[in-house]
Amino acid sequence: MATTRKTIVGGIDSDVLAFTAAQDTQLDLALVEADCIGTAAHVTMLARLRSAPRLFSPEERDAVVAELLRIMHGARSGAFRITERDQDVHLAIERTLTRRLGEPGKRVHTGRSRNDQVAVDLRLYAKEQLLDAGEELAVLCKALLKFSRKHADWPMVGRTHMRPAMPSSVGLWASSHAESLLDDMLALRAAFTLNDHCPLGSAAGYGVPLDIDRKLTAKLLGFRAVHHNVLYAANARGKCESVVLSALAQVMLSLSRLAADLILYGMPEFAYFELPPEYCTGSSIMPQKSNPDVLELIRARTSRVLAHAAATSAVVCGLPGGYNRDIQETKQPFMEGIQTTRACLRVLPRLIAGLRPDKQRLLAAFTPEVFAADQALELVAEGTPFREAYDMVKARLGRLEAPNAFRAVAAKKHLGGTAGLDFDAYNARVREIMKFVRHERKRYHAAVSRLLGVSYPSLA
Amino acid sequence: MATTRKTIVGGIDSDVLAFTAAQDTQLDLALVEADCIGTAAHVTMLARLRSAPRLFSPEERDAVVAELLRIMHGARSGAFRITERDQDVHLAIERTLTRRLGEPGKRVHTGRSRNDQVAVDLRLYAKEQLLDAGEELAVLCKALLKFSRKHADWPMVGRTHMRPAMPSSVGLWASSHAESLLDDMLALRAAFTLNDHCPLGSAAGYGVPLDIDRKLTAKLLGFRAVHHNVLYAANARGKCESVVLSALAQVMLSLSRLAADLILYGMPEFAYFELPPEYCTGSSIMPQKSNPDVLELIRARTSRVLAHAAATSAVVCGLPGGYNRDIQETKQPFMEGIQTTRACLRVLPRLIAGLRPDKQRLLAAFTPEVFAADQALELVAEGTPFREAYDMVKARLGRLEAPNAFRAVAAKKHLGGTAGLDFDAYNARVREIMKFVRHERKRYHAAVSRLLGVSYPSLA
Amino acid sequence: MATTRKTIVGGIDSDVLAFTAAQDTQLDLALVEADCIGTAAHVTMLARLRSAPRLFSPEERDAVVAELLRIMHGARSGAFRITERDQDVHLAIERTLTRRLGEPGKRVHTGRSRNDQVAVDLRLYAKEQLLDAGEELAVLCKALLKFSRKHADWPMVGRTHMRPAMPSSVGLWASSHAESLLDDMLALRAAFTLNDHCPLGSAAGYGVPLDIDRKLTAKLLGFRAVHHNVLYAANARGKCESVVLSALAQVMLSLSRLAADLILYGMPEFAYFELPPEYCTGSSIMPQKSNPDVLELIRARTSRVLAHAAATSAVVCGLPGGYNRDIQETKQPFMEGIQTTRACLRVLPRLIAGLRPDKQRLLAAFTPEVFAADQALELVAEGTPFREAYDMVKARLGRLEAPNAFRAVAAKKHLGGTAGLDFDAYNARVREIMKFVRHERKRYHAAVSRLLGVSYPSLA
Amino acid sequence: MATTRKTIVGGIDSDVLAFTAAQDTQLDLALVEADCIGTAAHVTMLARLRSAPRLFSPEERDAVVAELLRIMHGARSGAFRITERDQDVHLAIERTLTRRLGEPGKRVHTGRSRNDQVAVDLRLYAKEQLLDAGEELAVLCKALLKFSRKHADWPMVGRTHMRPAMPSSVGLWASSHAESLLDDMLALRAAFTLNDHCPLGSAAGYGVPLDIDRKLTAKLLGFRAVHHNVLYAANARGKCESVVLSALAQVMLSLSRLAADLILYGMPEFAYFELPPEYCTGSSIMPQKSNPDVLELIRARTSRVLAHAAATSAVVCGLPGGYNRDIQETKQPFMEGIQTTRACLRVLPRLIAGLRPDKQRLLAAFTPEVFAADQALELVAEGTPFREAYDMVKARLGRLEAPNAFRAVAAKKHLGGTAGLDFDAYNARVREIMKFVRHERKRYHAAVSRLLGVSYPSLA
Repeated sequence: MATTRKTIVGGIDSDVLAFTAAQDTQLDLALVEADCIGTAAHVTMLARLRSAPRLFSPEERDAVVAELLRIMHGARSGAFRITERDQDVHLAIERTLTRRLGEPGKRVHTGRSRNDQVAVDLRLYAKEQLLDAGEELAVLCKALLKFSRKHADWPMVGRTHMRPAMPSSVGLWASSHAESLLDDMLALRAAFTLNDHCPLGSAAGYGVPLDIDRKLTAKLLGFRAVHHNVLYAANARGKCESVVLSALAQVMLSLSRLAADLILYGMPEFAYFELPPEYCTGSSIMPQKSNPDVLELIRARTSRVLAHAAATSAVVCGLPGGYNRDIQETKQPFMEGIQTTRACLRVLPRLIAGLRPDKQRLLAAFTPEVFAADQALELVAEGTPFREAYDMVKARLGRLEAPNAFRAVAAKKHLGGTAGLDFDAYNARVREIMKFVRHERKRYHAAVSRLLGVSYPSLA
Repeated sequence: MATTRKTIVGGIDSDVLAFTAAQDTQLDLALVEADCIGTAAHVTMLARLRSAPRLFSPEERDAVVAELLRIMHGARSGAFRITERDQDVHLAIERTLTRRLGEPGKRVHTGRSRNDQVAVDLRLYAKEQLLDAGEELAVLCKALLKFSRKHADWPMVGRTHMRPAMPSSVGLWASSHAESLLDDMLALRAAFTLNDHCPLGSAAGYGVPLDIDRKLTAKLLGFRAVHHNVLYAANARGKCESVVLSALAQVMLSLSRLAADLILYGMPEFAYFELPPEYCTGSSIMPQKSNPDVLELIRARTSRVLAHAAATSAVVCGLPGGYNRDIQETKQPFMEGIQTTRACLRVLPRLIAGLRPDKQRLLAAFTPEVFAADQALELVAEGTPFREAYDMVKARLGRLEAPNAFRAVAAKKHLGGTAGLDFDAYNARVREIMKFVRHERKRYHAAVSRLLGVSYPSLA
Repeated sequence: MATTRKTIVGGIDSDVLAFTAAQDTQLDLALVEADCIGTAAHVTMLARLRSAPRLFSPEERDAVVAELLRIMHGARSGAFRITERDQDVHLAIERTLTRRLGEPGKRVHTGRSRNDQVAVDLRLYAKEQLLDAGEELAVLCKALLKFSRKHADWPMVGRTHMRPAMPSSVGLWASSHAESLLDDMLALRAAFTLNDHCPLGSAAGYGVPLDIDRKLTAKLLGFRAVHHNVLYAANARGKCESVVLSALAQVMLSLSRLAADLILYGMPEFAYFELPPEYCTGSSIMPQKSNPDVLELIRARTSRVLAHAAATSAVVCGLPGGYNRDIQETKQPFMEGIQTTRACLRVLPRLIAGLRPDKQRLLAAFTPEVFAADQALELVAEGTPFREAYDMVKARLGRLEAPNAFRAVAAKKHLGGTAGLDFDAYNARVREIMKFVRHERKRYHAAVSRLLGVSYPSLA
Repeated sequence: MATTRKTIVGGIDSDVLAFTAAQDTQLDLALVEADCIGTAAHVTMLARLRSAPRLFSPEERDAVVAELLRIMHGARSGAFRITERDQDVHLAIERTLTRRLGEPGKRVHTGRSRNDQVAVDLRLYAKEQLLDAGEELAVLCKALLKFSRKHADWPMVGRTHMRPAMPSSVGLWASSHAESLLDDMLALRAAFTLNDHCPLGSAAGYGVPLDIDRKLTAKLLGFRAVHHNVLYAANARGKCESVVLSALAQVMLSLSRLAADLILYGMPEFAYFELPPEYCTGSSIMPQKSNPDVLELIRARTSRVLAHAAATSAVVCGLPGGYNRDIQETKQPFMEGIQTTRACLRVLPRLIAGLRPDKQRLLAAFTPEVFAADQALELVAEGTPFREAYDMVKARLGRLEAPNAFRAVAAKKHLGGTAGLDFDAYNARVREIMKFVRHERKRYHAAVSRLLGVSYPSLA
């Protein structure tokens, strides 16, 4: 292609090529399989078109698929590479097919543009990554809920404004973070649904004067729906990425707050929780140090993922319709945002499993003031109007006696209170996520296996 | 309350009060109804508790609700106001109730904190605003689709990199923007679902030692679910807002691209579309000017809404659990982001309805090059491999003849192509949104009407 | 103007007017004086032009200036208002002049556009605000340095990763925040210099076919330089604002870290510092609470100001040259960002002055481990290689004895160490800021006084 | 170090190490020279301390410097690498020194922490990069000014709201972009000054109980000043990066607007400018395409750099004082932001040099309306009040005759108008930048050459 292009546009010089290709040769390695699968679906569809003359005979179609499988194997073994001269994964694969198959290789691009190729690739990539992230999120929730249940009645001072507020429990604390993550699945699933629309057939954003079957390619690729309007199918690039990153940003926000709590309560002044030592690092100058680096990095990487999401939206903002090269700049923040979030999700379950709460320290924090609101409410239960009860307790603040913290934890029996947590409901939500992930993954693997004629993802 | 507080904490001076209350006295005016409704539900629940002594008798409960209705009427007439001494809507209402009802007024805060009050208020607000935004989005889609259908076969040059690419149509262009907005409903609905969880009963984030019935209050308020964990119910503030703003940011991104297209194609050098004159403004120095200010402002306000979303996420990021005052700073970007998005959604349908495409100018843009890819694909349909056809067409670029633009538009019959748009499917999606909006609105109004014993929202 | 405009462009309907004018009628109130001063300079220059016929006679010029003074008085008394029909401050003033003076009023807009008017207004505004912010920053630094010097040798545990690290002092802690703010003046001064370029004469961005004297107007307005290229003078709008907000964002980042420290060390678990009670607020449910709301709001408002800066940059990003209405959307974040930062700067000096460190609590935090690095370094001073000393101390971590904290603080005599702080140098930097502020303010006031023929800012 | 650390903190497992080290092993390669130079300065200072026993003899100091030179040579040849076990450049170098020199290698870390090492490295890196960026900016300005001067009187329609407004010129257009970049030097120089403060001696943020000479190390390293307070010297990490990125973001904003103009005016509908063909790319499906990819990528990368700046600020925001691991996450956006900006600055001068304006197309755009404001102002010059002249011209808009565009360009003789550009003043500003860059670079090279005893940067 580069040669061809030179003839037309006067030749791109190598500096310009390096400027434009940028990280694509590297980033696109993550898209090799998706690109091969997309091409297999496209060629299969072309082979079924009732056009005369035929675009692909069944044999030619099979030959192309066989070569695509070879490329996929090559990508897994590290043998397949993308050079700067290729520019991107699409031209690298087309060039390989043409070299190996001759004429049929030149025909695979019929009725397609690199624009819809990369759109297909990124959606397949997004769908798989979202499922993986969903599974990792469920595993982390499981760890948090197990920890929560195990220490459900361990008293822990509840705080507002970071200062002691009311009696709470380790169980309430841990499951609050789990529930936040469970809720984040709403956005992840909406992002999955959006990416579950097939853009193939958009070509350069304006369709083709061929009788292509867009529903068929969507079905072959396991998509549930088609992005109908071919121009929108092109314009949706950037939007699809932005929606994924916004969803992952919510996950990171949840993790950042878990990390912030653990950093705070792991300070020796609190020592409510001891972190597993293998998650801490030392200092090159202070021999005594053991620092919660993993948690600090999670906190900071949340800002990074938020910035990736912001960059992706900003690139799209105010862009006229139709493909613009600007969109390429969403690929790196998109992929980095996903990989960062997943790495954070993966590092935490073992950390939570190894977390050791210190009952002595937890109880030592229960100063009499922590019970003030409870005491006011007890007066209320005996008939005093709340504002009067509040004033009465306030008036004798210095002379409050600390009631039993365990009793306080056991007293809040209402729904979602320290003694009212419904772990069965939580676990059902975790199972529901796992079920969703498995179902969608199976659907996709089945579609690809059918398409390629081998078992996917094993390729056996 | 300010007086009470002074006794405890030494008195807040007025500078500090101004610094902390900030815009709350103004912003909270939008929350008066939600706060009254939330209080009605809370008191109703307290009145049904089988505690001894009773917290509220049926008569007291009715008296409180009657006063709340008076406040709601007062808010509608502009008579009810929030002073800086009140600090916020919650204390303004509690103070009013206490002044009017005496003791029962002092009891309405039993088992509640301002934190869960504001959480309830903001979710009710979010739900209503999202429904309104959804309806406005549907109205805009309708206008775009009507325009699209009316000009479905009007040729328009399709572009990539902003330069002429392939034949396209006014219909394809307009419905591409509609489909983008239709897809944005995915995120809006996920945001609605998240906000459809009732936080009430969280109190200060740690529940209360009373046997409150959180499912009942949720039901009285028309929420579909409860935020289970009381600490998470508190922590979810900020997250709920952030998810709403992320969803609206997607809507704004869609609008920004529509605006960008209209600004570009409305330039006299294109003049594809003439804007309705009442949407244009002049210049104080250049007598001839007619400028697309409305569209430019939509483009720019997209960046504003993105910044509102970013601010909201950033405030939450890395914050330890439990209420922190930082969260107050999400209220203004939240409300401004919603109102800005809605204003943009509302201004556009009439602009679209008044848009006049200029067929002459649209056709004049069809230079022969625009047909190059189509011609290559026609060679393909006759049997030439694509890469060879591409090279053949490229070799005679200067000598291409311009085929008929109408024919080109009519040739792309495949799904979602210029001649393959399925308006029935689009319209069904618009109706589906309207159905969702009406259903949810009715559910909420019915619940509130039952709760207050008057017809809501008329209050008659 | 609105009427005039209707004739040309078909009339703007009131919804569109509300959409486009947005907050301008409100925000522009802050620009009335700057706009009057800019008009006075412009008319004065026109009156001095050696054109025939004269654009303004000396008497007419004086009449205009007299009316401008009346408007300025009106603005100060609240009598002068901007209506939606005026759209903005520029048309409101021009309309007032025309009503009062007749023909000369119609001539003040000669050779000017609203675009360069607002550009002038915003730079005069920016310059004054930056000087005010600079002064407030200096006052805060003074408070921090006074506090630092007073407690220069009070031991305080130094931390890394929020965990105890090495001996430090209250003095080192407080002056670290002062030095951060002092450094922030670099960016504030660069922002001042950028805004100290006069854009007047740019008209609509393309100059005028009149022999205007741009150097004269710049001098009359107290600007040190002219934005030379008239197109750039227009394009610089947005950039000037963005640079100011970026500088203020640095100030806010400094404040956010001061606030974070004070929130942390004010927790009862640390209680290193007691906040003045009038800076704390209570809870509506928990009688015992005293919360650091002011500091939490500063922390959160930092994210707001960062978002204002981001919004301003994003609006400008990728905008074609020449005025675009998008730019209007930078006005609100610009003004809010400035006012928020200044409010935070102003609220802190009294808080710092009222801060009471608790020596007992500060000393109690000195566990033996805090001295580990110092002990390793003492071994080094006796000849042991550092890595060996480090290992030796590490090996006996559990058995370390706590040396005297005061001695440790006194031991770090090197420049900038706990015992090596140079308060004279710090105070010189504070004085240098005050000198800069006073000098620039005086320069501006003198120029305006000369221009208006009254003492400015008193207008007497 | 990793081994040592394992003993203390229980061993970091390899997953955690990969999570924490992240890209450091890769990114730190850019810091090898700075780290060696910083170590050379530190050891030189230790060797001059009048402590007994001596920390370094002159011979030991020379041996360390010789080994550091070997490492620098190794880094240039690609032989020196940083492994994950090293974690970062600092431990990689210390380990190498220890392996090669034995005991003295163990002593180089005396009185230092990795925290101040990385702080020194990043400031030296920032200073060099800022000088390089400054030079590249000057080169681009030169290209723009040359282009501007060459086409100073070529008429070009000036626009507002992207629509024709008033007569302008190619010269005014091109130098408007140059002046924007020249102004960006203000922020770049402020960033340079901030980074020209030496943090060395901060150690872990709390200094050391040794009599180190911080002024000496600052001087040896060519820093103009010292960050006085050792805690602030540590806290300034993140701030220094943020200020650099904010400055570069301004540069990118300037470039984004230049790119936006060139994309717009390069569209065939305008064709004011033809881009050099080697800066354009083709399409895989449309044979006729020639697209301005380089410019689109510059536009999009502006959003990326803005996001890098935002991420860096967000990481710092609200962080308690003293080193926190979060700060590591500023390194990647910092370095990427710099490299991206510099790549954009470098790609443009040749593009500008190859830009061919098309006089015919430029003139063709001058419709009569473009002269409307000028005509109104000519009436003014003849004595008509502006508002009346405006109305008169407006009334005969359809019947305006187009005066000569060249004459209109020549008519605006005032300062900075189309006929009033002062290229000498512009070129003086460019030379001033080059002088600054050369002076600072020479200063630094001289300091390092003295320190290492070889000619720097040649190392010969």
